[in-house]
Amino acid sequence: MSNEFDNLTLHTDAYEINMMQTYFQAGLQDRRAVFEVYFRKMPFENGFAIFAGLEKVINYIKDINFTDDDIEFLRSQNEYTEEFLEYLRNFKFTGSIRSLVEGELVFNNEPMLQVEGNVCECQLVETAILNIVNYQTLIATKAARIRMAAGDDPLLEFGSRRAQETAAAIWGTRAAYIGGFNATSNVLAGKNFNIPISGTHAHSLVELFQDDYKAFKAYAQSHRECVFLVDTFDTLKSGVPNAIKVANEMGDKIHFAGVRIDSGDMAYLSKRVREMLDDAGYPDAKIFASNDLDEKTITSLKMQDAKIDVWGIGTKLITAFDQPALGAVYKMVSVENDNGEMVDTIKLSNNAEKVSTPGKKQVWRITERKDGKSEGDYITLDDENPNDEDSLYMFHPQYTYINKTLTDFDARPLLKDIYKDGALVYEQPELADIKQYSEDVLSSLWPEYKRELNPQEYPVDLSTKCWNNKMSIIKDVHDKIKNKQDKGEL
Amino acid sequence: MSNEFDNLTLHTDAYEINMMQTYFQAGLQDRRAVFEVYFRKMPFENGFAIFAGLEKVINYIKDINFTDDDIEFLRSQNEYTEEFLEYLRNFKFTGSIRSLVEGELVFNNEPMLQVEGNVCECQLVETAILNIVNYQTLIATKAARIRMAAGDDPLLEFGSRRAQETAAAIWGTRAAYIGGFNATSNVLAGKNFNIPISGTHAHSLVELFQDDYKAFKAYAQSHRECVFLVDTFDTLKSGVPNAIKVANEMGDKIHFAGVRIDSGDMAYLSKRVREMLDDAGYPDAKIFASNDLDEKTITSLKMQDAKIDVWGIGTKLITAFDQPALGAVYKMVSVENDNGEMVDTIKLSNNAEKVSTPGKKQVWRITERKDGKSEGDYITLDDENPNDEDSLYMFHPQYTYINKTLTDFDARPLLKDIYKDGALVYEQPELADIKQYSEDVLSSLWPEYKRELNPQEYPVDLSTKCWNNKMSIIKDVHDKIKNKQDKGEL
Repeated sequence: MSNEFDNLTLHTDAYEINMMQTYFQAGLQDRRAVFEVYFRKMPFENGFAIFAGLEKVINYIKDINFTDDDIEFLRSQNEYTEEFLEYLRNFKFTGSIRSLVEGELVFNNEPMLQVEGNVCECQLVETAILNIVNYQTLIATKAARIRMAAGDDPLLEFGSRRAQETAAAIWGTRAAYIGGFNATSNVLAGKNFNIPISGTHAHSLVELFQDDYKAFKAYAQSHRECVFLVDTFDTLKSGVPNAIKVANEMGDKIHFAGVRIDSGDMAYLSKRVREMLDDAGYPDAKIFASNDLDEKTITSLKMQDAKIDVWGIGTKLITAFDQPALGAVYKMVSVENDNGEMVDTIKLSNNAEKVSTPGKKQVWRITERKDGKSEGDYITLDDENPNDEDSLYMFHPQYTYINKTLTDFDARPLLKDIYKDGALVYEQPELADIKQYSEDVLSSLWPEYKRELNPQEYPVDLSTKCWNNKMSIIKDVHDKIKNKQDKGEL
Repeated sequence: MSNEFDNLTLHTDAYEINMMQTYFQAGLQDRRAVFEVYFRKMPFENGFAIFAGLEKVINYIKDINFTDDDIEFLRSQNEYTEEFLEYLRNFKFTGSIRSLVEGELVFNNEPMLQVEGNVCECQLVETAILNIVNYQTLIATKAARIRMAAGDDPLLEFGSRRAQETAAAIWGTRAAYIGGFNATSNVLAGKNFNIPISGTHAHSLVELFQDDYKAFKAYAQSHRECVFLVDTFDTLKSGVPNAIKVANEMGDKIHFAGVRIDSGDMAYLSKRVREMLDDAGYPDAKIFASNDLDEKTITSLKMQDAKIDVWGIGTKLITAFDQPALGAVYKMVSVENDNGEMVDTIKLSNNAEKVSTPGKKQVWRITERKDGKSEGDYITLDDENPNDEDSLYMFHPQYTYINKTLTDFDARPLLKDIYKDGALVYEQPELADIKQYSEDVLSSLWPEYKRELNPQEYPVDLSTKCWNNKMSIIKDVHDKIKNKQDKGEL
């Protein structure tokens, strides 16, 4: 058995396949439906999130195919009919997908990805899409938070060893790159995604030589670019003096890029190390730091005037340590009824925030022309276009007394066509362009939405039509239940 | 490009390959070394952890091989010499691996996996081994905590959509199964690992039919085993009454296994639902609950006398939400010197807990014969065997005044041979046997080490020889640095 699973068709929850059989047995397998992906709460209480994961979703959809082996396994469950298994054997994804582009800003309670197709294919892809988009969006967002704390300092992704299994290590570093990191230690990610790779040596190199000096010297004799790890035995007494000694001896034969500190009091050590490097005539040698860092420790170290130039970030980024799940959901918003008409659907709940917003929707980013800054996102039903309006009435979907009317605005639709009727119609940009795009859209956001602590809530409003539609459907469902109860049917 | 990366050879940190080049250029590529994997702190402040990940490590090691493509990518970095690239082209893992078996209890500061080989191969495999073992051990341990809270209730792993990317979803459910779960929703994991799969339907089924009754009826007409999800519109007013109605109508044609509640006040709802099911003549119909549950909410719900029979656990398990990284490290403990002798090595640190324990070691589980319970783990250098001793002096490695002497004991070595000189010499047990083994070893642990909150610290002691060796090496390193300083060499 291979370690990874090239074909992810069975990477789905059993209930998806069970529902597919129910639809199939009821003759409903061709009913059209629309599902949307969204999350309810901002991750890390951040003011924005950065969408990522589309690349892998595209590949996943392309490869959907039940192998004979898969069919055999399903048959062994004694749960599925032969007719249904035959249907699966010929199954292909024939639906349409609209999605934010990677690197786009995304906020809570707005659709970031939309699947439209027959109910069976819509159902099958739920699990994998959520699994991919939830994680990659989370990490891109975490990376953006760290980027804001680090200012323009180089940020290196070092988390592979602490990532949650191999796919997280590899795809997570891609998401981190989109969110603002500069390079990764992961060679496979570097190769596959064209991300710059970075790294010099570990404590073990020094242990092998039993000596900082010998280890650094050997490294310098086999690499031009040198960053010496100085804390194996004693940072100030042995590591740094020996790094300087080797740099002096090697002269122009190497580029003495700096030293890395991986333990101890970073604020204190970095200042002492800076002095030592400066005194030795290496003002350009950088100090690299790594040791369970994140946006909070970076901010704290900067406030302490720590002399750190380059940040190696591992565990806290790659696992999104302070909130390791985004919690995006995938909800049916519209479905074909017995008369062949699309009707909007809702998921009610005793938890108010779990109530979905019915209808196939589009998300519009509203920008004031005068300053080019984003004023909020405006969610419409799919047949609306805010650009047709002279003025736009935006109101908070829960607290409707919070509202404003815009006149001089642009509305940019965010959900783009990715697949149409099973065909890929979208060409992914180069990763570097995705990264640049993310940086650009972030600059259009007011600083109030970007601060690390207690950001202002970015407006995500429903159009009047969309809001009225939701309220009317909630009322219909309640009336229907009451009606049945009154008739004594329950 | 494929979504997953079958060959994980380049799934390593760049510094590993950089160090390999340094060893190679210095002619040291055949030097023998020993590295050990261990973690410093118990995850979740739990009293024990459960080792997992070996299966994937075995496969990973087997497949190590630099492809032409890999070599080409490395060449493009302008960092590696042609001789070194040629060396990589012919590279195979020829080393030895000893490891705990999967399902074994493991504690902090003891080697759980040991790699012995030439320094290059030892270095290369660090990242992937840590990545795999860190995550799977974490999840098996989290699962065991949830198992203890749930008593004998069935536990279903439902976390795929919230897992950190695809490998975590798939391998994480295997680890959860080892740690005490009964089934998973993930079909691919079920197929590949022979784990029972579980699941019925989602809210979307009900939304398609716009009606609980019609949805449940359609499900019942296409599946014998039925668990109806009752909270799409209103649990008590619509979901449960309609589930009962369908069960009444279908009679023996289905097995009405129960209902699932996914939102709302679980304690209150489950009691009301239990009454409704009992009153309707379905005392055997189970109540399934799912909604961000973990060991804490399970304990709380049980204390509130909630009537929940089966627990579906997602996010909190599969991401190890309250501590999403284990933090195991991989440290060189011994290396061949210029004279061809193996010398023990240390990594010192300004953080006291980051100091490693030198020497190739074995871990022994010490059991008192009179009750068969584990008295602690005893770490020796590799040439020691506690079974040769009449009495065993065990002392705390930091607080040495905490000590005891055992006479009537058994010592069981925990690190088993997995690879020897590149050859796989270990046959993995069936997954069901691994799960059973874990249950058995856990029953040999005193309850004081197993409680959820503030467990007693399980003794992990060093043999006198191992402890003395460490102290003497620390002194040597300090003397050496002082000596150099005194001589003015630094």
